[in-house]
Amino acid sequence: MSRNPLAPSWLVQPQSANALAPRVWSHNAVRAASGEIEVAGVSSTALALQFGTPLFVIDEADVRARAVEAVAVFTREFARIGAATHIYYAGKAFLSTEVARWVTEAGLNIDVCSGGELAVALAAGVPAEKLGFHGNNKSHAEIERAVALGVGVIVIDSLIEIERVADAAAHHGRTQAVRLRVNTGVHAHTHEYLATAREDQKFGITLADAPAAVAGIRSHASLCFLGLHSHIGSQIFGTDGFGEAVSRLLELHAQLLATGPVPELNLGGGFGIAYTDVDEPVGFSEIAAALADYVLAAATRLGIRVPAIALEPGRAIVGPSTFTLYEVGTIKNVEVTGANGDTSVRRYVSVDGGMSDNVRTALYAADYSVRIANRASDVAAELVRVVGKHCESGDIVVLADYLPGDVTPGDLLAVPATGAYCWSLASNYNYLGRPAVVAVRDGAARVIVRRETEADLLSRDAGISSPSLPTPEQAAQPVMNGIA
Amino acid sequence: MSRNPLAPSWLVQPQSANALAPRVWSHNAVRAASGEIEVAGVSSTALALQFGTPLFVIDEADVRARAVEAVAVFTREFARIGAATHIYYAGKAFLSTEVARWVTEAGLNIDVCSGGELAVALAAGVPAEKLGFHGNNKSHAEIERAVALGVGVIVIDSLIEIERVADAAAHHGRTQAVRLRVNTGVHAHTHEYLATAREDQKFGITLADAPAAVAGIRSHASLCFLGLHSHIGSQIFGTDGFGEAVSRLLELHAQLLATGPVPELNLGGGFGIAYTDVDEPVGFSEIAAALADYVLAAATRLGIRVPAIALEPGRAIVGPSTFTLYEVGTIKNVEVTGANGDTSVRRYVSVDGGMSDNVRTALYAADYSVRIANRASDVAAELVRVVGKHCESGDIVVLADYLPGDVTPGDLLAVPATGAYCWSLASNYNYLGRPAVVAVRDGAARVIVRRETEADLLSRDAGISSPSLPTPEQAAQPVMNGIA
Repeated sequence: MSRNPLAPSWLVQPQSANALAPRVWSHNAVRAASGEIEVAGVSSTALALQFGTPLFVIDEADVRARAVEAVAVFTREFARIGAATHIYYAGKAFLSTEVARWVTEAGLNIDVCSGGELAVALAAGVPAEKLGFHGNNKSHAEIERAVALGVGVIVIDSLIEIERVADAAAHHGRTQAVRLRVNTGVHAHTHEYLATAREDQKFGITLADAPAAVAGIRSHASLCFLGLHSHIGSQIFGTDGFGEAVSRLLELHAQLLATGPVPELNLGGGFGIAYTDVDEPVGFSEIAAALADYVLAAATRLGIRVPAIALEPGRAIVGPSTFTLYEVGTIKNVEVTGANGDTSVRRYVSVDGGMSDNVRTALYAADYSVRIANRASDVAAELVRVVGKHCESGDIVVLADYLPGDVTPGDLLAVPATGAYCWSLASNYNYLGRPAVVAVRDGAARVIVRRETEADLLSRDAGISSPSLPTPEQAAQPVMNGIA
Repeated sequence: MSRNPLAPSWLVQPQSANALAPRVWSHNAVRAASGEIEVAGVSSTALALQFGTPLFVIDEADVRARAVEAVAVFTREFARIGAATHIYYAGKAFLSTEVARWVTEAGLNIDVCSGGELAVALAAGVPAEKLGFHGNNKSHAEIERAVALGVGVIVIDSLIEIERVADAAAHHGRTQAVRLRVNTGVHAHTHEYLATAREDQKFGITLADAPAAVAGIRSHASLCFLGLHSHIGSQIFGTDGFGEAVSRLLELHAQLLATGPVPELNLGGGFGIAYTDVDEPVGFSEIAAALADYVLAAATRLGIRVPAIALEPGRAIVGPSTFTLYEVGTIKNVEVTGANGDTSVRRYVSVDGGMSDNVRTALYAADYSVRIANRASDVAAELVRVVGKHCESGDIVVLADYLPGDVTPGDLLAVPATGAYCWSLASNYNYLGRPAVVAVRDGAARVIVRRETEADLLSRDAGISSPSLPTPEQAAQPVMNGIA
């Protein structure tokens, strides 16, 4: 079959549009003998019937396994160079009480960056000392609460925060452990990185300003300086950027050692995952080995002891664990005229969610892939664009992939690798209710975040007085967007 | 003062960083003698004290006035060419029961595009016959409900929907008025437009396919064909694109008249507003006059009667009515090295909201402006970037504007023209609660959508069992992100 000129150059037409590329799908997602996509033994059809669509389906054992692997691998590699390891799950990727418990049981701490994330972690029963608190603009109320609850560490992001945190700690009679966020000027994205004196963004302070800031921190009896904190970017595939950052950070770290203890160094997160089968992320083992080598080399060069290393993976723990299950409602073949005047067909497949449950495609031009979930098909694959039901032409879920040519309304579609930054960023655009999140494990599925109801959507509207309001029974029904 | 090389080329340094450019602010927003920004007689400080920040502040009389003006101007101009007018408020821009009532009282119908938007309009007491129902992928449940409730008109977006709507109407013993969404191939944005055979997006069917589709609609006794529907884009400043679309639409309209009645033509919306003082949108009068001229010219050329015209403004009604009130938490001067190696300073001003309450800056690279709201200042203006408190470097609210150099933590900032697509697209990213929406009129302010509480944020989490859960009293407190 000739290639559709509308297909982006990176997109490879698959041998089979039924196959699930292992690196894009969770460990326990398979195409079963029935033809259905199953996760941990539960079929997509069963999930859709029981919980409705759209639906976030999270493979619990996959999250737990990646969390355990992260702890094991980083601990092993840093032990090799004599360093202790503290790993934080970056809650901003996806946080619910269940997931907070899973990662805690795997030995991870949790990084939160708002009072709301703090509340979720506490509601999960995570001890406050296992939490790190981040943010470029923490409110006084957030700082007060974090300190009062005994949060393990607060990352200070600006000079003005030194006094704010010190005052709160003094007020509560506590000695608060803090890190200092610095901006190394290294920015990594996918395979490349950029290095300047200071990255043009809001977080942290410069390396040059850090010694004075650390002196400020050390001048407060209510603060205990743990070390520097750095985060060089998101969805990183290479390790070179980390090498440059480690070098810059440890030079400063060595300088700070001259005036007091600096027990730790936090290198942040940003480890990339595969969203499509052409993505080739670096696994935890390779990252851990490379980071340990960078740290050892820089420490050796500088003649300092290797500090304890802290890391903050989020996407790499939870991203690959989840697929979003949608139902197809309408399909259109759209003739598109290319730059050369030739006409090609793009098939628009509309599903019952969209940019309200996955804004990453529109927000970051992110690529995703898609498979039919309720059946296999041997019909030749065709280029598709999966779009949502929002009243906006930019409402695109999967920009380009191939699906069997017989995809039809009522089919279920699964979009993998939606575990990070999809539910987190979800909105109620067009008053669509946000999907449920269902955890599947050992053949059983259970709701860990329930679907939003129409009552939820109307609950904050202060002007409701009309008798046309749905009854409580009606309003308590889950909002079912599907065509089925 | 020399120009900061980091300022974008379009940005004009204002004579006074206290001035409110009339086209960007609502009618009743002023810089009062006290130095504060007041709206309808209520000061920003009073609003922040009473309702907290961030806060959407909507100038009720402004919305009502723009709604009344739209009805008056379009009705007048189309009456001039012998056409009736039906104007729909596009609820997707911003919808609450209060706003639904305001626009209804001004004589507008309401365009909804989901069961949720339908529910809000009904809860406001808007009669179902005044509603239009849109969407490229309406669920069966939505179609059933819309038909059963007696929605005035349904816009059919694809061939498969003809049967779906016809079946629902037959089932309920109703004759459902419908329009047919066509894709004219005209896409307008700001000053320019593009015309192809078919725009590469999900909505509508081609002009070529429309006659068969209309025949299909007319073959159903349960459907009544009103006419064609078109929408050529968003945030449009010129009128040329409408001229081309009208020409194409009325040619098809004339063809359809040969086989049956076609009483109306719906030209959609997309009328732009000013987000910064360099934007020069076309006012309702100019648009209405141009559209009427285009319709008359095409109808005359084709020898047909002028149909009734329907329009769907949303942003142009509600966008300019609102500013978002934030509190400053932290400020950083960041030295940025330009392409030529020179170093300039960008001042990052962090506020207590961000991409969760205004994702348009990140999503569409939208520009906004900003003013200090709680006081005037004569200190020389400096280039700023207003950023939020989210754990993401792309969390930018205002990419570039000038503020007095003495802007400081605790100051209130107002970002105008946030009435459309900000609250609508708001998320709970990083578990931040969504702001309240407060309507101000005649010196009084009242909540029309209440602020989200921590209890709201945790209410769908199915795994909460820990004694660390906040008490109901604690959880019912509004989430206050501010530093004050």
